Amino acid sequence: MKNIEVCLSPELLPFYEVNDKVVEVIDIFRATSCIVTALAAGAESITPVAEIEECKALQAQGYLAAAEREGDQVEGFDFGNSPLAYLETDMKGKKLAMTTSNGTKAIGMAKKMGAEEIITGAFLNKTSIVKYLLEKQKDILLLCAGWKGRVNLEDSIFAGNILDELLNDFSFNNDACGLARSAYHLGKNNPTRFLTDSSHFQRLKNKGRMEDIDFCLTLDKYDLIPFLKGDKLILKD
Amino acid sequence: MKNIEVCLSPELLPFYEVNDKVVEVIDIFRATSCIVTALAAGAESITPVAEIEECKALQAQGYLAAAEREGDQVEGFDFGNSPLAYLETDMKGKKLAMTTSNGTKAIGMAKKMGAEEIITGAFLNKTSIVKYLLEKQKDILLLCAGWKGRVNLEDSIFAGNILDELLNDFSFNNDACGLARSAYHLGKNNPTRFLTDSSHFQRLKNKGRMEDIDFCLTLDKYDLIPFLKGDKLILKD
Repeated sequence: MKNIEVCLSPELLPFYEVNDKVVEVIDIFRATSCIVTALAAGAESITPVAEIEECKALQAQGYLAAAEREGDQVEGFDFGNSPLAYLETDMKGKKLAMTTSNGTKAIGMAKKMGAEEIITGAFLNKTSIVKYLLEKQKDILLLCAGWKGRVNLEDSIFAGNILDELLNDFSFNNDACGLARSAYHLGKNNPTRFLTDSSHFQRLKNKGRMEDIDFCLTLDKYDLIPFLKGDKLILKD
Repeated sequence: MKNIEVCLSPELLPFYEVNDKVVEVIDIFRATSCIVTALAAGAESITPVAEIEECKALQAQGYLAAAEREGDQVEGFDFGNSPLAYLETDMKGKKLAMTTSNGTKAIGMAKKMGAEEIITGAFLNKTSIVKYLLEKQKDILLLCAGWKGRVNLEDSIFAGNILDELLNDFSFNNDACGLARSAYHLGKNNPTRFLTDSSHFQRLKNKGRMEDIDFCLTLDKYDLIPFLKGDKLILKD
């Protein structure tokens, strides 16, 4: 039976093996929610980069470019980190470059450590992810992007949700799974209320981004899997 | 109102402030359970050290010495990491040196980062810890020792227990608190069963150390607070 593990912060990734594993990067608020939304809106590809300057360089090459720091859109870019923006823009066939505080960094770290395959998940495409992981039957690492090195609650409960769906088909015994599942069980009936006191929820709420929160907690709006091919996230066939 | 935070692994400590805080180090299986037991048994002091060689050097100076790696006692030392050993040895007035895989390392990191005060907690002295923190009224960081950088479940549920006791008297909003409290709530009625699948529980069980597990999960056997003075853990007056 294949195994599934949870890493609650990218800073703990060096303590995990990723070779020969499918790594699912999770950044509910809001990078992986943006990624699935932009691809659903027709973007051809998304190039996640760690630094503002790399993102700017791609913008200069004709990419649309999204950059977020401290929760805000960085000046001079086409997008920040709100998934709703991709619903209001013609994304068809567009190449997008993206840099965010946590999510794109996590993708980069998983790539650098040699993950066999990297996909990204969010509530928006949860069932597609679950189906894919069930079919694929490889060892899995659920990598939560967290917030600046710290763990966060929304990525953890999403990981707990995935674990629950895969309970009968995978083994899992790492303790982070226990934490993620516990939080999911307590939060599943009302995620919005459960997350109300969490740090990122408060941060977004204070910035007037409740619409983003509601959107990012929407279940199965899209049926697609973003996966990393080379340096670009594209749609899985 | 003073604040309380949880750090689920020493590897995440660099993302926290510790200055001006009381740091409570938690390593239920088994370092902080050993520390409270050895002091209860009459040890004059415990010097936590990171490396085997430092521990050996103190042993050569006449200290009793405890050393554990991979869950086992290191050859040539007086103790491993079983708290029960301190019940079978005359510890009165003895100086003890101690090095363990996770707990003594966490103490060393908190010290290096400049924590105002470092105390150690376990189920064995839980109520003493809670009373002390309530009286002290300083910002608090609950630092879980984990296992080789990864989070673990037993330290997390203990942190969740402490949080629950301090709920009305401290503010807490970091997301690790939410994870720790969730796990505590699901596990509190039967911690032994809740922890059965956790990695360290299994590791100790496979080594035939179920007695250690039961002892470490015993509530309030001792009424004392170990705290770090210079490089030694001694009893708080």
